[in-house]
Amino acid sequence: MDFTKTILDENEFPKRWYNILPDLPEQLAPPLHPLTKEPLGPKDLQPLFPLEIIKQEVSTERFIDIPAAVLDIYRLWRPTPLYRARRLEAALKTPAKIFYKWEGVSPPGSHKPNTAVAQAYYNMKEGVERLTTETGAGQWGSALSFACNLFSLECMVYMVRASYEQKPYRKMMIEVWGGRIVPSPSTQTKAGRATLERDPKTPGSLGIAISEAVEDAMTHENTKYSLGSVLNHVLLHQTIIGLEVKKQFEKIGLYPDSIYCCVGGGSNFGGFTFPFLKDKLNGTKAELEVIACEPEACPSITRGLFAYDFGDTAKLAPIVKMYTLGHGFIPSPIHAGGLRYHGASPIISLLAKKKVISTQTFHQNATFQAATLFAQTEGFIVAPESAHAVRAVIDEALRCKRTGEEKIIVFNNSGHGNFDLAAYEAFFTQKLVDYSYPEQLVRKAMRDLPEV
Amino acid sequence: MDFTKTILDENEFPKRWYNILPDLPEQLAPPLHPLTKEPLGPKDLQPLFPLEIIKQEVSTERFIDIPAAVLDIYRLWRPTPLYRARRLEAALKTPAKIFYKWEGVSPPGSHKPNTAVAQAYYNMKEGVERLTTETGAGQWGSALSFACNLFSLECMVYMVRASYEQKPYRKMMIEVWGGRIVPSPSTQTKAGRATLERDPKTPGSLGIAISEAVEDAMTHENTKYSLGSVLNHVLLHQTIIGLEVKKQFEKIGLYPDSIYCCVGGGSNFGGFTFPFLKDKLNGTKAELEVIACEPEACPSITRGLFAYDFGDTAKLAPIVKMYTLGHGFIPSPIHAGGLRYHGASPIISLLAKKKVISTQTFHQNATFQAATLFAQTEGFIVAPESAHAVRAVIDEALRCKRTGEEKIIVFNNSGHGNFDLAAYEAFFTQKLVDYSYPEQLVRKAMRDLPEV
Repeated sequence: MDFTKTILDENEFPKRWYNILPDLPEQLAPPLHPLTKEPLGPKDLQPLFPLEIIKQEVSTERFIDIPAAVLDIYRLWRPTPLYRARRLEAALKTPAKIFYKWEGVSPPGSHKPNTAVAQAYYNMKEGVERLTTETGAGQWGSALSFACNLFSLECMVYMVRASYEQKPYRKMMIEVWGGRIVPSPSTQTKAGRATLERDPKTPGSLGIAISEAVEDAMTHENTKYSLGSVLNHVLLHQTIIGLEVKKQFEKIGLYPDSIYCCVGGGSNFGGFTFPFLKDKLNGTKAELEVIACEPEACPSITRGLFAYDFGDTAKLAPIVKMYTLGHGFIPSPIHAGGLRYHGASPIISLLAKKKVISTQTFHQNATFQAATLFAQTEGFIVAPESAHAVRAVIDEALRCKRTGEEKIIVFNNSGHGNFDLAAYEAFFTQKLVDYSYPEQLVRKAMRDLPEV
Repeated sequence: MDFTKTILDENEFPKRWYNILPDLPEQLAPPLHPLTKEPLGPKDLQPLFPLEIIKQEVSTERFIDIPAAVLDIYRLWRPTPLYRARRLEAALKTPAKIFYKWEGVSPPGSHKPNTAVAQAYYNMKEGVERLTTETGAGQWGSALSFACNLFSLECMVYMVRASYEQKPYRKMMIEVWGGRIVPSPSTQTKAGRATLERDPKTPGSLGIAISEAVEDAMTHENTKYSLGSVLNHVLLHQTIIGLEVKKQFEKIGLYPDSIYCCVGGGSNFGGFTFPFLKDKLNGTKAELEVIACEPEACPSITRGLFAYDFGDTAKLAPIVKMYTLGHGFIPSPIHAGGLRYHGASPIISLLAKKKVISTQTFHQNATFQAATLFAQTEGFIVAPESAHAVRAVIDEALRCKRTGEEKIIVFNNSGHGNFDLAAYEAFFTQKLVDYSYPEQLVRKAMRDLPEV
């Protein structure tokens, strides 16, 4: 058996999500109210989220049942395959065994619907009629539009302007599923208008787009807000990925030595790694290496401060303790729009602070070079976000070539790059800029951290 | 068990293609040489194809082994899932059971690599270093670029200009896999230059692009030609689709009553239906309905003549007996570029002539309306070509609603529409033209049929 592709059947399909909260090395610092700076209670979150989501956000249950209606939609593309990247290994002449999980088979083309479907379902159950959200590269916005459509909810997407202009097909995809979309900052919200006044040419950022979506939800009837990353419940829903991968490795009698995932807010990283980190945290797999791959242009965990900060630019979202480059930081317009976030999930931040996980950073050209080699060996064209993990894995496999290590490496191939082909072309024609971390700007943004 | 998705494991994966030639109701009329008009011998085909392909083109073996190296690449995305379209059924309130095979999971996004990989493999085995081809919507060109890259062959693609301009991402995809691509008619060939002289603004056609690719292959060293449809060996390779679907239906204990596939040259139609037509032709499933779905703008089988005609515009390709609208006919620039071909596979043409299969035709707006309903119920965004089958299936399901028939309907969802989103947008903004069959033009083109 050569394990080119490991699939799971209906009986092996996970029916529960894994909640890492009870297994963390210490309790998370409580999220604070953006105005009062007091610890948030469930009531403070009710204008934004349905009750079931608020319960999941703080649940200490280790496993949470996936509702049947959600499983039924997951089945459209799940369980997703786990591949052994034999052609990539051969091209690198590495003794390492490289595996990847392929989340690009979902209708919107990434892992994002894993939580979008769950969130749309819980909102529908509680009578919500309209959801607002932000999106970076458009993966999340199209996933929520897809999910809302299946549960007959309206969907309003604020898409970061830099990506809106780079990826016109994402907008059209959102519209095919009936969603509405505007570039952010927009003139539809106070937060958007204020930003446009300060800088009419701003490329936008996830921080600004979040402000707009939150403001929209708070000022419209029967409308709630949906976040595609960062928060505990989002990462919880994404653990379906890692739970499947664990079963797939069990099936072929292996366990990974190193796991690589890109991290923006952290939903794909958390979803893939938490079920494995469970084993590392309880000591059964203490040697497991887990690496978060960040862009040089926005290295939130690698270079940020571990501090309380706002989740968004306009200070409407909760204050959470996380690695942050400052809520005022607007990252350079790299093509990996999903990684352009000033902070990172509080859980992942805590795990990094405790050195349970480590980080690496990469420039755009290096990631597209890796993604091109991947496309030319494994066939699949990956998203610019996932390309960060591909780069890290190739570097590690080349190191193994020098040392002779037969290490088992796995990464999450979190989405396809069909709508990012203009970025590949920019790479081929040497038009990609290797934006660095603008330390001065960030220091300025850091001075703005809330006093708590 | 609700059969939402039926998958096959490694043991159920077909290892042989099915060749319909020995089961046809009568022998195919022999293909003729474009100059001498004498029956073609294997030697006449050697400038274009490797020996193994020429052998397969005329083989009378009922089953042909799939080489291990080809199976190994198929495994990247095969076996593909068979879905029960429960949400579409519910939306239509039909008692019919609707199933679809989903070929959009391949790296290039359609069924086309099923033959591209096989053709690239046989060419590589015989020392060929470069392949030329034409492409309509770009599905075939990207599939051949993908396949050539895996076997280290150069790939040169002539893409019909109308589609080249509608679908820029296809060009970029071909380049990611290392292929070269030019819009056709191009200035690179005599055939292209001649067409441009007559009509500098021509949208191009598959017929012209084939002429260019054939001329290129005949005038370059170590270069052969690869066709993505029409010919017997192409349809043979595509039967992996129908063989899988048959096993999937066996697994759930069902057999379809009606099969719908779109048909341009016929590769997806033949690949899906031949393994089922075997049962119809030998009488075990005499009642099976098999329907070819054509565009109103290019209804080759529905409105064409069953006659000997050239496969291409410049009369370089073999003369074959088929339904044709005339090799000089240039179809209107509908978005379903893969269906813009003046003829159809000789095998499929014979089956239509013998009334083993029937046809239906559809306008663009009707197909995109159906595809939008499909995307909003089943989630997947389909290619404009596949949308023709979706339309036909929805019409039949609505008929069943009136009659109460609990019919089992299946269609091939042959590719995704990620690169066709501009066409969806044109549909939403009422900019799609319902081009009709220009009877006068076609009559003129028909007068040009070769005398044989």
